Amino acid sequence: MNFIEDLIQLIKEKKSVVCMGLDPRLDNKGEIPQFLIEELEEPNKIILEFNKILIENAKDLIPVIKPQIAFYEKYDALDALKETIKFAHKNDLLVILDAKRNDIGSTSEAYAYSMFKNLNADACTINAYLGFDGVKPFLEYNEKGVFILVKTSNPSSAEFQDLFSIRLEEIPNNVIEYKVEGKILKRNYIQLSELIYDWSNKLEKFSNFTNLGVVVGATYPQELRKVREIVKSSFILIPGYGAQGAQAKDIKNGFYENGLGGIVNSSRGIIYAYHQNEKFSQENFGKASRDKIIKMNKKINKEIMN
Amino acid sequence: MNFIEDLIQLIKEKKSVVCMGLDPRLDNKGEIPQFLIEELEEPNKIILEFNKILIENAKDLIPVIKPQIAFYEKYDALDALKETIKFAHKNDLLVILDAKRNDIGSTSEAYAYSMFKNLNADACTINAYLGFDGVKPFLEYNEKGVFILVKTSNPSSAEFQDLFSIRLEEIPNNVIEYKVEGKILKRNYIQLSELIYDWSNKLEKFSNFTNLGVVVGATYPQELRKVREIVKSSFILIPGYGAQGAQAKDIKNGFYENGLGGIVNSSRGIIYAYHQNEKFSQENFGKASRDKIIKMNKKINKEIMN
Repeated sequence: MNFIEDLIQLIKEKKSVVCMGLDPRLDNKGEIPQFLIEELEEPNKIILEFNKILIENAKDLIPVIKPQIAFYEKYDALDALKETIKFAHKNDLLVILDAKRNDIGSTSEAYAYSMFKNLNADACTINAYLGFDGVKPFLEYNEKGVFILVKTSNPSSAEFQDLFSIRLEEIPNNVIEYKVEGKILKRNYIQLSELIYDWSNKLEKFSNFTNLGVVVGATYPQELRKVREIVKSSFILIPGYGAQGAQAKDIKNGFYENGLGGIVNSSRGIIYAYHQNEKFSQENFGKASRDKIIKMNKKINKEIMN
Repeated sequence: MNFIEDLIQLIKEKKSVVCMGLDPRLDNKGEIPQFLIEELEEPNKIILEFNKILIENAKDLIPVIKPQIAFYEKYDALDALKETIKFAHKNDLLVILDAKRNDIGSTSEAYAYSMFKNLNADACTINAYLGFDGVKPFLEYNEKGVFILVKTSNPSSAEFQDLFSIRLEEIPNNVIEYKVEGKILKRNYIQLSELIYDWSNKLEKFSNFTNLGVVVGATYPQELRKVREIVKSSFILIPGYGAQGAQAKDIKNGFYENGLGGIVNSSRGIIYAYHQNEKFSQENFGKASRDKIIKMNKKINKEIMN
């Protein structure tokens, strides 16, 4: 396999750039249906059954799923995660594991091993605050995909990511404040995008894309357009569609004219769709998610194919 | 319990600011002793036994340990991690779980639950690239400690953390480049330190410190001094001592004159000490680590008490 090649092929086959986020939540009403919780009792069983039904209802409609590992860790359900990934692969779906791991090089190696060998994910998300040392061990799995957080979908993402910054190589380390005159500054997430562009340029391309992607929230459409211009050979994973408030027109900026270049994730909006639509009982949560994906595909394809 | 109160008390009782990093590595010679691997075979058993012997040899000498979760994930050894944390607590040691987790708010909640409820860590490390949204769920566990990555110990940490930046609130989102005249810029890790100082100021203080700490690598002593001046009420977790090349004089800048304000982590330097010292056979790896800690305490106390 090669993540980006396979992704592009599946996008074309299924005519979809939608990614289904598998974020199992067991705590509140409107999350995993009560009948599954009562019937199966144990979190690993509940979550796996929930995911399998979602996958069966989505497999012909989408190229990829994105489990959020935080929830599997919370419920001690890493077995369900492993089985979900296996089941997704059997059903012609790729898996991006959302883990946002980051550490120094020798530790990042261990994380990369967990993501790609133990869990057999096809791609994962990482955080590059530590610079290239911590990114490299993930890229060494040539055939796997890596998505670096650039501009996140949450309200406080501006706090640090939107600072205006500049690289001033000539200043000694011990100088921490510096007065600049007439210099062009760029926001931090733009600086990081430029670093990623450089890293990506050293990697092999498949249909103009490398296996190094980025994450930009659908909740920031203007920022998405700017990042699209910089990371020319990267796919953009675009979360925040649906429950976080972004709509189809907001994600258009992440795509090239040929409809490639992005994938749009929705988690709660798809998997708990039964709760937002009276037409579906909790027993029909799978059909509700299928119905939601069909509508999402239609809306998004209309935007990105124009 | 209250993490920072307990930490300060243990530092005073044991006259030590050393943190033992428990990073089990099974792959190469000079890591976990071969006799344990052969005798116990299963990673969970090998790692737990290795950690128990290290803890027994260190318990009267240090206040805190820091397991790096990446390695427990790599070897599918989360049971060994849980048991190690229990054993550390029984032996009068606090536990900082090095996990560098980060996500949007609703997902950070799940991570905080894993760290503090499932695994029962007393503190954990996190990455604040996403801003306060992702930090808050960890701080909601009032009695637990949180250490935010500020300036990491690895060679490429400058790549992003050392950019010079400025907060320009008045500029609209869609402006990504901006020419500045006569403005004072500060390095990114300094900007983040200032944010953390603001967040910390809203928390309760115990002996002048809050439960919100930072991470600054011992490999960057000048940067450590600057961060110490900013995050006045935060403890600094200082990794990179030993195997990564930093020495006792390098960490002095992280401490106040009363010897408080920092803890110094060494992982490989302590736990694989038997491999660097011919005096000790592999069977005596625990004694070798004890010997190493005694020397570290002496060297570090000499620096920070002057």
